[in-house]
Amino acid sequence: MKNLLLLFSFLLLLAASVSAQSKDGRIAAEIRRVMDAQVAAWNAGDIDAFMRGYWNSPELVFVSGDTVTKGWQPTIERYKKRYDSRAKMGTLTFSDLEIEVLSKDAAKVLGSWSLAREADNPKGKFTLIFRRFKDGWKIVHDHTS
Amino acid sequence: MKNLLLLFSFLLLLAASVSAQSKDGRIAAEIRRVMDAQVAAWNAGDIDAFMRGYWNSPELVFVSGDTVTKGWQPTIERYKKRYDSRAKMGTLTFSDLEIEVLSKDAAKVLGSWSLAREADNPKGKFTLIFRRFKDGWKIVHDHTS
Repeated sequence: MKNLLLLFSFLLLLAASVSAQSKDGRIAAEIRRVMDAQVAAWNAGDIDAFMRGYWNSPELVFVSGDTVTKGWQPTIERYKKRYDSRAKMGTLTFSDLEIEVLSKDAAKVLGSWSLAREADNPKGKFTLIFRRFKDGWKIVHDHTS
Repeated sequence: MKNLLLLFSFLLLLAASVSAQSKDGRIAAEIRRVMDAQVAAWNAGDIDAFMRGYWNSPELVFVSGDTVTKGWQPTIERYKKRYDSRAKMGTLTFSDLEIEVLSKDAAKVLGSWSLAREADNPKGKFTLIFRRFKDGWKIVHDHTS
């Protein structure tokens, strides 16, 4: 009887663990879809669509080098100013993505970005914090270097 | 009677909200203590003590510019190599800290760092992800630029 109880407890724990893993996998897949959509939007020259991956809030945090940009509106303006032609936008690639679920509504992503352009090939790393909203997972904090 | 129930529900919600806020405040205070201890250790020239703020794991992530360092051991070695004299370490200050609790065991911190040194005054921004462990809150991911 005692062994049966132990076995039963073990199976319950195993089921909970498998369920948590598959849930994390689902979250990671949803986040990857958001980022794939960003890449597709960028490479279509559509910064407005690219920005749909970001939390549309004055509290959005965007860090690049020594500069912190606060809010969705200043962030989209920064992108549109820096990438004001199709040539400057180039072709974006995200790689080396490591998605880690922190809770049911928060996750972090480490990754590499690169732009293939006629003139040069800038690249770097980013750390993203995603949070889950009613309309899906959005970047609330982006630290790019 | 209906009004009393409404009032009671409202008070319960208020109590839950106040309790969540004070819990977030306690977490923020604990994280601030970890970072204060890091600053004190650095300014005492003690990189080993400074590194106690980081998760002692091969999974620790440290991003600086275009370089990702994985693991606590490579991270401490990087620090000891780059700051191999008291003069190079200078005097560290953290400022503009914005601590946001993501869940009961995860939080993010945006902040500025600066080193006052005889020769120069390097400075920049950091994004930290903290997680709660048995022995307290530790940085699991540091993106510095």
